[in-house]
Amino acid sequence: MKNGIIISFEGPDGAGKTTVLEQVLPVLQEKGYDIVTTREPGGVEIAERIRDVILDVNHVAMDSKTELLLYMAARRQHYVEKVLPALEAGKVVLIDRFIDSSIAYQGAGRGLDKDIITRLNDFATDGRKPDLTLYFDVESEIGLARIAKNAEREVNRLDLEKLDMHKRVREGYLALTEQEKRIVTIDASRELADVVLETLHTILEQLAKNE
Amino acid sequence: MKNGIIISFEGPDGAGKTTVLEQVLPVLQEKGYDIVTTREPGGVEIAERIRDVILDVNHVAMDSKTELLLYMAARRQHYVEKVLPALEAGKVVLIDRFIDSSIAYQGAGRGLDKDIITRLNDFATDGRKPDLTLYFDVESEIGLARIAKNAEREVNRLDLEKLDMHKRVREGYLALTEQEKRIVTIDASRELADVVLETLHTILEQLAKNE
Repeated sequence: MKNGIIISFEGPDGAGKTTVLEQVLPVLQEKGYDIVTTREPGGVEIAERIRDVILDVNHVAMDSKTELLLYMAARRQHYVEKVLPALEAGKVVLIDRFIDSSIAYQGAGRGLDKDIITRLNDFATDGRKPDLTLYFDVESEIGLARIAKNAEREVNRLDLEKLDMHKRVREGYLALTEQEKRIVTIDASRELADVVLETLHTILEQLAKNE
Repeated sequence: MKNGIIISFEGPDGAGKTTVLEQVLPVLQEKGYDIVTTREPGGVEIAERIRDVILDVNHVAMDSKTELLLYMAARRQHYVEKVLPALEAGKVVLIDRFIDSSIAYQGAGRGLDKDIITRLNDFATDGRKPDLTLYFDVESEIGLARIAKNAEREVNRLDLEKLDMHKRVREGYLALTEQEKRIVTIDASRELADVVLETLHTILEQLAKNE
C-alpha cells in the first residue's frame, strides 16, 4: 500500500488557496488518487465547535495566547480524528491551512514566540509535518481587495484586522519558505487558471515521488 | 495599596472544595477583605464557551491533548480578563481550580507529560502561580460517593470516568503537595464545619502575612 501524504495549502487571506484546492481536486480524483480534503480550524465536530469560538465576531476580548491555544486544540482533534486515519489508509490529504498558519498568524502576525508555537505544533500533530506545502503568495493589498470583492463570504472576526497584520503574516510566510524545504511558493497574483495549473503540476510531481 | 493575591482551591471531585469556598467567602468579606471568587474552566464569557466544549457529554471522541489545550485556552482568557485585573486592584482572588488541576487531571490522570503541562501553565499565566493553594484531600471512594449523592449537580462528561482515573488524580495531587511549598493539604474527609474552619484559619494566616 502507498504511504498516505499530507499536502497543505497556505497563504494570507485572499490568496485564493481555497478556490485553487477546489479546482485541483476533481483533476486529481480523475487521475485515480484517493483524496481527502479538509480545512483548519474545523473538519470534525469538536474542532468545528472550537472554530466557532475562535471566529465569533463578539469575541473582541480574545487574547492572542487564547487564540493560539484554541487553534492548537482544534488542530489536535482534527489531526487525530481525520488526518491520521486518512494517512493510515494511504490517502492523499489536502488540507486548507495547517501548522504554518500558526507561525504566520500567531507568530509573525500577533508577535507570539515562534519556538513555543513550533513546540505546540509538534505537540498537536505528534511531530508530523506536511510532505508538501503550497504557499500561495500575494501582496497584502491585492489579497485584501479580493476579500472585499467576495460578497458570498461572511465577514468574521479576523477580517476586521488591519492591513498591517496582513503584511506581517505575509512576511512570516516568506520567512518560513526560506527555512522549510517542503514549502513551494506559488505566485498567486496571476490569473486563477495559471495558479491552478502550477499547483497541479507541483502536486503531481510530489505524488509521482510517492509511488 | 496591598498586593493582590491568588488563593486556589484544588482537589479531586467530591472533595467539597466548592462548598467550602462558598462558606468561607462571607466570613472573609465580613472581616473587610475585598474578595473576587471565580472558577476554572470558565469565569468569563469566552472561557465559559470553551468550558461548554470541554464538558459536552457528546464529545466522547475528545483527545487528551485537545482537552489539555482547551483548558489552557480557558485558563489564559480567564487569567487576562478576570484574575489579572483583580490582582492589579489589590484584591484577594479565590479560585476554584487552577494550574494544579491540569497537572493532576491531564498529567497524572490522562498520562500527558507533566513538563509540557507546566510549560503551558506558565504560558497561560505568564508564569504567575497562586500565593496559597488549598488541597482538599479525600479518598476516591468517598469523593465519588459524595458526587453520586449530590442530586442537584448535573452529570458531565468527566463524571463518566472510572474510579481508576480519580485515584490517579489524587496521586497526582499528593505528589504535587510534596513538590510545592505553597500547597497546604486539608483533610476533607471530616465534617464540613471542621474543613471550613481549618480553611479559614489557613487563609487568614496567609492574608495576615500579606498585610
